Amino acid sequence: MADAIAARLQALEDRAAIADLIARYGPLADAGDAAGVAALWTDDGIYAVDGFPEARGHAAIAALIEGPVHQDLMARGCAHLLGPATITLDGNRATALCHSVVLAKASEGWEPVRVAANRWELMRTPDGWRVTRRDNALLDGSEAARALFAG
Amino acid sequence: MADAIAARLQALEDRAAIADLIARYGPLADAGDAAGVAALWTDDGIYAVDGFPEARGHAAIAALIEGPVHQDLMARGCAHLLGPATITLDGNRATALCHSVVLAKASEGWEPVRVAANRWELMRTPDGWRVTRRDNALLDGSEAARALFAG
Amino acid sequence: MADAIAARLQALEDRAAIADLIARYGPLADAGDAAGVAALWTDDGIYAVDGFPEARGHAAIAALIEGPVHQDLMARGCAHLLGPATITLDGNRATALCHSVVLAKASEGWEPVRVAANRWELMRTPDGWRVTRRDNALLDGSEAARALFAG
Repeated sequence: MADAIAARLQALEDRAAIADLIARYGPLADAGDAAGVAALWTDDGIYAVDGFPEARGHAAIAALIEGPVHQDLMARGCAHLLGPATITLDGNRATALCHSVVLAKASEGWEPVRVAANRWELMRTPDGWRVTRRDNALLDGSEAARALFAG
Repeated sequence: MADAIAARLQALEDRAAIADLIARYGPLADAGDAAGVAALWTDDGIYAVDGFPEARGHAAIAALIEGPVHQDLMARGCAHLLGPATITLDGNRATALCHSVVLAKASEGWEPVRVAANRWELMRTPDGWRVTRRDNALLDGSEAARALFAG
Repeated sequence: MADAIAARLQALEDRAAIADLIARYGPLADAGDAAGVAALWTDDGIYAVDGFPEARGHAAIAALIEGPVHQDLMARGCAHLLGPATITLDGNRATALCHSVVLAKASEGWEPVRVAANRWELMRTPDGWRVTRRDNALLDGSEAARALFAG
């Protein structure tokens, strides 16, 4: 009985931790906190963003935030919005799917400049859940994004 | 004591399951998985989308995904983004409110082509939580969407 | 053991309650329920919206919803979308960070007219979690929004 309750609690905590991890990405990215963004991943975690070379490891992921594309977006004003994720737990591993929308300031209002499908692979580490791989594919009618969401 | 803990766990699991169910809609819709979308509903569940005839049952709901409006959106590139839902549990029933935003690819960037209020009615089934009714009303200044959200 | 389980349950319930509180804001605002919006705050809670005088207390917060800017948005058709929040619990206090996006009906489709960073301060009250302060800063390239998200 106690074991069953502990397992149910653990599963809920895992879901909450993963949802919170994903929800931290946008605020960290929009604050320009490159080290904070990178720390969401494992040391050798991969961030494969549509249109960019695949980034592996903290330095490469931080470089995406410090790079000209992201810095230009920040100077203009931007929001990296991530939708609520559907999470599938599998012991010390998990996957999650969600949308991402990058809104950038325009002369009037804001405009969605990137809208993408995201698939996250995560693992439990001694320091909590971390991302081992995030794939991102633009929802521009191409097959790649559909394939990501089809899991 | 054990009963109280079990009830609290169950309520948290119900919330997590319903949030995850709603979060699965967008990825399934954008992957074009008509059967997967339909399976979020009960066998005779209703999906009443503003501007479309009311769909009742899996075949009718799947037909919305397989139909020309949705297929055209997918060919163009689209995201069916659902906001975080506020969920009210009532035993084996629940209701939830959230926004939906459909973003479609334009010549440059994406544009919000549908923005709506959504009210979900759900029930616990032997296979988990399922949608018995989803009402969707465009937030275009009309009374219908306000009424849905005033719930 | 029972104490540890109760504490873990409480933390999960706190997270769920705070996420739900934040998710209620948009539907209440878009339904024009000024009293309902205000009741998310403590009696002397503060809502500091970028571009508006700071509102303190239920009457002042309700006045934002009843005021001309919000009423014009509602007449036009609008969605006050809040992204998933990252929540940090600290006993009877908590903070949360999330994006807000206001979409307004245009001649064709909808357009994002406000995109902002939000930082919420919350406290546990005898009636449940309530907002003691919400700061909102437009993500228009200015330092204020970055500072909010940098926490």
